[in-house]
Amino acid sequence: MRVLVTGGAGFLGRHVAQHFGEAGHEVAIFDQAASDMEFESIVGDLVNANDVKAAVADKDVVVHIGAIGDVYLAGEQPALASSVNVTGSANIAEAALAGGAKVVYASTWEVYGEPEYEPMDENHPTNPDHPYNITKLAGERILMAAGHLRGLPIVALRLGTAFGSGLRPNSVFRIFIDKARAGEPITIQGDGAQGRQFTHASDIARAFLLAAESDITGVALNTIAPDTTSIKSLAEMVVERFPTELTFGAPRPGDVPPALVSARKASEVLGWRAEVPFEAGLDELVRDVVANG
Amino acid sequence: MRVLVTGGAGFLGRHVAQHFGEAGHEVAIFDQAASDMEFESIVGDLVNANDVKAAVADKDVVVHIGAIGDVYLAGEQPALASSVNVTGSANIAEAALAGGAKVVYASTWEVYGEPEYEPMDENHPTNPDHPYNITKLAGERILMAAGHLRGLPIVALRLGTAFGSGLRPNSVFRIFIDKARAGEPITIQGDGAQGRQFTHASDIARAFLLAAESDITGVALNTIAPDTTSIKSLAEMVVERFPTELTFGAPRPGDVPPALVSARKASEVLGWRAEVPFEAGLDELVRDVVANG
Repeated sequence: MRVLVTGGAGFLGRHVAQHFGEAGHEVAIFDQAASDMEFESIVGDLVNANDVKAAVADKDVVVHIGAIGDVYLAGEQPALASSVNVTGSANIAEAALAGGAKVVYASTWEVYGEPEYEPMDENHPTNPDHPYNITKLAGERILMAAGHLRGLPIVALRLGTAFGSGLRPNSVFRIFIDKARAGEPITIQGDGAQGRQFTHASDIARAFLLAAESDITGVALNTIAPDTTSIKSLAEMVVERFPTELTFGAPRPGDVPPALVSARKASEVLGWRAEVPFEAGLDELVRDVVANG
Repeated sequence: MRVLVTGGAGFLGRHVAQHFGEAGHEVAIFDQAASDMEFESIVGDLVNANDVKAAVADKDVVVHIGAIGDVYLAGEQPALASSVNVTGSANIAEAALAGGAKVVYASTWEVYGEPEYEPMDENHPTNPDHPYNITKLAGERILMAAGHLRGLPIVALRLGTAFGSGLRPNSVFRIFIDKARAGEPITIQGDGAQGRQFTHASDIARAFLLAAESDITGVALNTIAPDTTSIKSLAEMVVERFPTELTFGAPRPGDVPPALVSARKASEVLGWRAEVPFEAGLDELVRDVVANG
């Protein structure tokens, strides 16, 4: 298949592009910055409908990961998050409809908001409360509407918080590892009891490939690892690897509280489940940080 | 109060601007086209952050009605609806935060989607399924997030389908009245059994004024008339006034199915309830169409 990976120069996009390439697909990367990978690199802006249309025109599948994915940036610039995450997704929908491509969309477990029951499945009400998850859900809905109103083949993957090599420097993983390596104290914001079902980028990449290669359409699937790791445990695991002091600070406003999410439907529909154990993924990330800084 | 009415040159915006003016407030209208009303007219684009910031800077309240409010246009151009309805609302949020204004947002009863129980109150899950209601809900959420994360005073009114003088020519009211007056048959799309709690623009204008003048913030309120009128009844009432033939055609895709919505909370919180009886509102609209074409 000819596959366009939007956001393919970013952390998660690189993992996904790599995985599709290894599976024998013809990959092109669409991003604001040129990609240094071995694939075709298309520089463009998701908000520019012409850029998107030209890039999508000859593709069979669009893996739409490109977004303001940095929660803190989205919080500071909600208009930017709205443009890229919602209008950008609308542009992808139009281009894919015009070119006859299927879309696999990177949504997020954060669309649910405050849990009404746990584990949360895909029928749980959606109550996003931050410009990041609000705009990611709106992008998902715009694509889904293009599916049921106009026939666009579309699968949305509601991803767990991704981690792996190449993670952004302002992610909690990188902050902890970078501090600890420098011998500085690690500060946990809040009590650190809040957990996340951290999901390895390679597991997520596999989910995108399964969704792209399958015939399913019109569904949203939680794509998230089963085990919860608290921020405190993460900090302790980092301290085991790079001994340093652990301190506690004020919670960050807008941090999403923990909630258990079920990936049962992804298992039933796609045969997907997360396979990378958390500590193995952490070790891979630590090796990457040590090797590449 | 100094009040900015976005979309103030449009059907609903005119009613609202008029009502605020009559209540003694200093009204300015922000729209893409110049307003011919007696208020200050600011021509600008909601998607342009500078236009919005300049218009909002010295206001106490922003009544944010400006949107791609034509459901069919939103369906044809989802990227445009995303830009205006989501990014535009994010621009309003930023400008209101910067200028210290309160925002009263025109949301819609259509945010709920398929009813899980009826009448639907504000706690009903939101499952919008069309670019119009998807982007209107995202705009509401972006403004609400600016409220709980950053202190913006914000009330969202989830409006019933509005009618009254000055209605758009492609509204079902105008289509029926215009056809009947011309002696052409009225075509009901679907069986016409689907009902709407049509809400008169003057009742809606009063809700905006109550919300703007109150101290409440951080709430969404259904602002919708209690009585349901089916499309078939509407057609029959029009035929009573301008005798013509009634025919039936295929349902329009994307039409929102009927669902009962409760305005009880708006009554409790704002002391608002709809007061214009449906037939009285229809008569006013008919007089307007006869007088102004």
